[in-house]
Formats: sequence, structure tokens, C-alpha cells
Amino acid sequence: MPEHPGSDPPVVSFLSDYGLIDEFVGVCKAVVLRAAPTAQIIDITHGIPPYDVRAGALTLARSIQYLPPGVVLAVVDPGVGTDRRAVAVEVETGFLVGPDNGLLAPAVAMVGGASRVVSLTNEEYQLEAPGATFAGSDIFAPAAGYLAAGTPLEVLGDLIDPLSLVPGTVPLPRDEGGRAEGEVLWIDRYGNAQLNIDPGDLAALGVEPGGPLEIRCGTDRRTGRWVGSYAEATPYELAVIVDSYGLVSLTLDRRPAAEELGLQPGSAVTLGPVPVEAGA
Amino acid sequence: MPEHPGSDPPVVSFLSDYGLIDEFVGVCKAVVLRAAPTAQIIDITHGIPPYDVRAGALTLARSIQYLPPGVVLAVVDPGVGTDRRAVAVEVETGFLVGPDNGLLAPAVAMVGGASRVVSLTNEEYQLEAPGATFAGSDIFAPAAGYLAAGTPLEVLGDLIDPLSLVPGTVPLPRDEGGRAEGEVLWIDRYGNAQLNIDPGDLAALGVEPGGPLEIRCGTDRRTGRWVGSYAEATPYELAVIVDSYGLVSLTLDRRPAAEELGLQPGSAVTLGPVPVEAGA
Amino acid sequence: MPEHPGSDPPVVSFLSDYGLIDEFVGVCKAVVLRAAPTAQIIDITHGIPPYDVRAGALTLARSIQYLPPGVVLAVVDPGVGTDRRAVAVEVETGFLVGPDNGLLAPAVAMVGGASRVVSLTNEEYQLEAPGATFAGSDIFAPAAGYLAAGTPLEVLGDLIDPLSLVPGTVPLPRDEGGRAEGEVLWIDRYGNAQLNIDPGDLAALGVEPGGPLEIRCGTDRRTGRWVGSYAEATPYELAVIVDSYGLVSLTLDRRPAAEELGLQPGSAVTLGPVPVEAGA
Repeated sequence: MPEHPGSDPPVVSFLSDYGLIDEFVGVCKAVVLRAAPTAQIIDITHGIPPYDVRAGALTLARSIQYLPPGVVLAVVDPGVGTDRRAVAVEVETGFLVGPDNGLLAPAVAMVGGASRVVSLTNEEYQLEAPGATFAGSDIFAPAAGYLAAGTPLEVLGDLIDPLSLVPGTVPLPRDEGGRAEGEVLWIDRYGNAQLNIDPGDLAALGVEPGGPLEIRCGTDRRTGRWVGSYAEATPYELAVIVDSYGLVSLTLDRRPAAEELGLQPGSAVTLGPVPVEAGA
Repeated sequence: MPEHPGSDPPVVSFLSDYGLIDEFVGVCKAVVLRAAPTAQIIDITHGIPPYDVRAGALTLARSIQYLPPGVVLAVVDPGVGTDRRAVAVEVETGFLVGPDNGLLAPAVAMVGGASRVVSLTNEEYQLEAPGATFAGSDIFAPAAGYLAAGTPLEVLGDLIDPLSLVPGTVPLPRDEGGRAEGEVLWIDRYGNAQLNIDPGDLAALGVEPGGPLEIRCGTDRRTGRWVGSYAEATPYELAVIVDSYGLVSLTLDRRPAAEELGLQPGSAVTLGPVPVEAGA
Repeated sequence: MPEHPGSDPPVVSFLSDYGLIDEFVGVCKAVVLRAAPTAQIIDITHGIPPYDVRAGALTLARSIQYLPPGVVLAVVDPGVGTDRRAVAVEVETGFLVGPDNGLLAPAVAMVGGASRVVSLTNEEYQLEAPGATFAGSDIFAPAAGYLAAGTPLEVLGDLIDPLSLVPGTVPLPRDEGGRAEGEVLWIDRYGNAQLNIDPGDLAALGVEPGGPLEIRCGTDRRTGRWVGSYAEATPYELAVIVDSYGLVSLTLDRRPAAEELGLQPGSAVTLGPVPVEAGA
């Protein structure tokens, strides 16, 4: 799609595990706007399960290719108040701001890696709190706002080595004797189960688009089909599809596949060719 | 209310069944802003039950009279990946963008009908996806963004006959021997149950504002009163009211009426005069 | 943090009990933008329990210190349609708009009190509804929008005495023989339970930072510790902390404290020194 030319408002894309019941999200946005009053704030989601850094990291990695250039503010922070660092990471498309706990790492990698990183130590660019620090509103949101408003990165704290960032932990599938043993990364609202398996893994197993494959979840073994679109599956047919993120997903027409198969994020799933029957 | 004069940012009003847990809504907004960086995006709601085209269509029809002129982006799309068309509909107040499955039809009718329609076939104004198309981010959101930014409608695809659009299916009440048999269109957060019955229907039955009426839900028959405001009902009194959309709603002071009466969207409700007792 | 200089878009911060399933929030925002097309709208939260004026008032009071100058639109309105007044309150940082039922009062007090108040009676600055008034979209949202756009307060209705506003009811802790009997104001997403007790109350009881204290909930008596940060608590240790709002909260590392202690908003909690054992 053709990009818009010209001088546009800065963008802050915001992901957290705050939920939408408490006022945390609103308070952080208020603080961003105090530093960057014309910013466009995009809520990626605030429905990451509390403290689930891995789910946050995966969601951010899925989203970042779609975001306009600008600042990403991401807060899933079980270590708030410990000595985990608060960081701002410079990348080609802008900046990512959040705790240094692996949350940002997969997204940073997807946009080409970090060029510079600061530890957010300059208290002049933070909010003072009357009690315990609420890092979202007091440290991360101000940093995101100032970066959106054009404040130079190095003003916000001390430059640190990008290689010192805590890495993300996106699991890789394993080859199990001609089968790919992976796991569920994400179950979406419609019950599709995205795996950490890509179409190249399937091709390496000899499974072909349009053809059958075996799907193992726990002791359950089923035969499915590799379809090209959701609509290609016949009603109630279990299928795998290369989803819009380029990863293999389990899908079931007319039903949530994850529920039918008893899957959760992290559940093991093994894909492979349909075994030839002993007597066949 | 007096309208604001002058040159304002474009508005994109957005409704979907995406929920707010996944990143779908954020990703679509990101894509809109890439095409229309100054746009004001209004979330109508993203809480439409998954695939519930009828609930989406009714919600959009209730909302559209309030929206500023601009673009409406609406996605409830059980047929994604089939040959259902993706369309942009030109109306007097702007454009509606979404799947051609009846979702847009009642709202289009409420603002005076379609003047021109395109099928969104121009891939230059779409996002490329690595796998299966996610129509929200890849087709609908770009179209909404470009229209908001002033791209002419006909650039986005082929003009099609407005009369070929899939119609909506808003049910009409039936006359059942001096009673109006309707159904529940919507149950709101407070438990009020909006019916597809309007005050003219009640008047035609001889029911008068301030007066009693009989309310039948399944085998349950109750007497209620037609009140002019929620506060006019006495505590725990079952009442009907002409709601802020001009339709008849069942309401119960201090309790959710829908729960008390066991109603769901689609439940049949019959309204009529209070029958004269045999012995009276 | 340094404030942004210059001429910025007006801000409308919005809190309600509307939830995000119905279109109420979207409709109100649409109406705000019709009056103030460049406004930045911040959702504080729409997850206040239906009709819970107290929860809304407390949330607004916690949030207001973070909000940019501008207009606050707050709607938790069990008395809609009664003769409760709809008001706009002028304060040093801008205006608060909502029902006169105590919802606004604690926040108004936190920003220095009301200078002028109008009852929103000028129907020229309201939306006409086909049926019962939906005060959010018809009265409150237009008022918030016009104030954001610079309409003078006195245009919107009749000036009334600020002292006539319905006061808020934030409960104060009681001294119970050397103990502070308070109650739970708020349970956040992480299960921390904020009390209406401040660190001065604890100090007056002879409880010291870093030291132990007794926590009574119902018949349950436990010993906790006053910690300086969430991370200072050892795993599964019950602790009290001065939270980011300056109030005492009960917290439990690795578990939701409120669930562990069976607490709800409004539950009584008594804090005091650890009693000396009879035989000690």
C-alpha cells in the first residue's frame, strides 16, 4: 500500500497486561500526551494475561510489522521494583520502551535489531510518585512520550550495550523422527491455534499444500488437511493453514479448534505425514 | 447541537467482532493511520459476538446517526476467504467499508442509501500478507484509511451496482390478533431489552403512554406499564419505555429486565392490551 | 517531568460504567468529536461496575492528578431521568462534566475545588433524542465537547452554587483502641487491595516502615510487614506497601492478596501493631 507523504503526528503504540478495568491504561496515555500532546496512541492490546511476558512478547512480535514508524510502549513487568532495568531501544522504525525482561526482544529482532539502548535513569524525565513507583506511569510512559515528541534518546538515561539486553525466548520446533514437534504460541478469539511451525518445516517433512497430514496433541492423533484459506475447509474439517503471520495454525471450520483439541498456549503439538497403515 | 465549522481531521468509526484481547483492533488502526495519519478513530465497539453479523448490523444501525461524517469501518466476517465481496459504499455522510454480507445494509439505509459502491479489488491499495489474508488489516483497514485520506472511491476497485448488495435482515414485528409479536434485538449492559417494536405499533394496539399493557415471553404473562422515563417506574416495576433509539424496550427498575424475564437476543416477546378478565 | 510548551489539541478524559460491549462509549466519543473535532480523548476506564458511583468517584480521584489540563467527562448515573442535576464544574485545571451525584466531588476536591458550576439546562447545546434521554450522548458528551472547543461555561446552563453540589462519600478510617479500622477501596488487576488508610495513620499507631504489623480481616488475624517496594516482600509474604497513590495497600508476592484474604471493595480491614503474647 502507498505510504502517506508529509509531516504526521507522532505515533505511540501501546501494549500491556493492565486490562481495561483499572485506570492504568488511561493514566499512562495521559502521561504520554502530557509530553507529546499531538500523539496518535494505538492500543495494540491490554489483554495480555497478568505478568505473562512471553505472551506479551509474542503479541508484540506479531504486531510490529503493521505499526507505523514511531514509539512502542510495552509494559508486562513482573519484576517492577526489582533491579531489572527500564530501557528504551532505538531501532530503524523508531523506539521501543519497556522493561528489560525479554518482552521487547523478539519485536526488536523483527525490525532489524537495536542500534542504541538507554537505561531510563534520568529522573528529570520521570514522574514523581507519592509512594511505590508505578513504572508504567512514572517511567515508561514519560519516556515514550518524550521520544515521540523528539527528545533525543541519550537524554533519558545512560547508554548501555545492546548486547546486554535480556533475550526473548521464542521456542523453536524440534525434529522428532520425521515429525515436527512444536507448541501452541497463541489461541485467537476464533479458536485458531497458532504454532511455532512454519510452512518450510512442513515442506521439509514431505507434507504438501492441499495434502493430508497427521496432527498429534497429547495422545490424540487426527488427520487434517493443509488448506489455502479458511473457507477451503469443509464444515467441521480439521485443517492447518498458513495464517496471516506466515505461521502454521490449526483451524476447524464452524468450531474453535483449540477448544475441540483441548489446547492452551504452550500445549505440545506434533505435525507430520500421515502414517502408512501396517496392512496397507 | 451546533456543528463545528472548519477543516477537521477525518474520522474513521470502527466496529468489529475482534474483541480486545488479541491485537486485531490495534493492527487495523495502525494500518488506517498509515494511510490517514491525522485520522480520529472512534471505536464503536469490538464486542460483537464472534461472527454475529446480525448483532453487528443492529449495533451499527443504532450508532450511525451519532457518528460524525467520515468513514465507517465494520468487520464481522464469517465468510472471510470465500467469494463474498469486500465493499466500500458511498453514502451522503461518507463511506462504509466492510464485507458484503448484510452487515452494512441497515446502516446504509438509515443514512439515505448508497450512491455508489466499489468492490475492493485493487491490490495496490491493500497490504500483502505472508499467508492467508486477514481481511481486516489487509483489505478493509487500508480502504478505510485511504478513503479517510481523500483517495477517490473508484481507485479502490470496480464500481458495482448498489442494488446488488446483500440486504440486511432486520425482523419486523407481526400482528397476532390485536397483539404485536416481536423479538429482542439487543440487551444492553443494564439489562434493558430492546424490541423490534416501535411506539406506533403500541398505539395501533390501543396501548397508551402511561397505561398498562400485557407482556408475553414464552408462557410467562405479565402486566407492565408504558413509562416516559426510567425513573418513572416504581421500584421493581416492569415497564416498557421508548428508548433513546426510538424503539420499545423492556426495563425493570433496580434489576436487569432481561435476566428477570429470561430473555436473549432473538427471544420472542408479544405486547398487547391487558386482557379483560372473564369475570370482570 | 517537563511540560510540553505551546498550543495543543484539547483533551477530554472519559470515565463511565458503560462497559465496552455496547456502543455507548463510541457514541459519546462521536458526539464529543462533533463539537471538538481535534480533541484527544483519553479513556480512563469504562469498567466501573454498573451504577457504582462510589467506585467511579474513587477511580476518578486516583486518576485526576495524572490527567492533562482539559475536560473530564464522567458518567455513572443511576439517577438518569430523575431530577438529579447534570452539571459542569469549573476547576483550576479545566472542567468536570457529569451527574451531580457525588461522582465528581472527590476529584474536584483533589484539584482545589470548584470555582463555578452550571446546571446543564441549555437544550441548544444538547442532542435531541427520539425517545427517553440517554444522558451520556445527549447532555454530558455535548457539554464536554463544547467546553473542550472553548464554549464559555455559562452558555451551557444556569450558574449554581458550588456548595450545593452533592458531596462525595470517601470513608475515613476509625481509631479502634490503638488500631486503624479501615476498608478496602479498590482491588486492582493484580489483586492488591488498596485501603482508606495512609502511612500517617500507620505511623500514629507506632507501626514503622520495615517493621511488622497485624492485619485483621473478619476473624482472620495475620502478621504482615510494611515493605518499601513490591519486590522487597519475600515469596508468598503478606505485606503492606504505600502504593503509587500514597495509600496503604495489602499485597502478597506471587499471589493476589485480595483473593487470599477474601476481600472485596468495602470489606473491613483493621491494621495495628502486633500484639504482645500473654506469656511473652
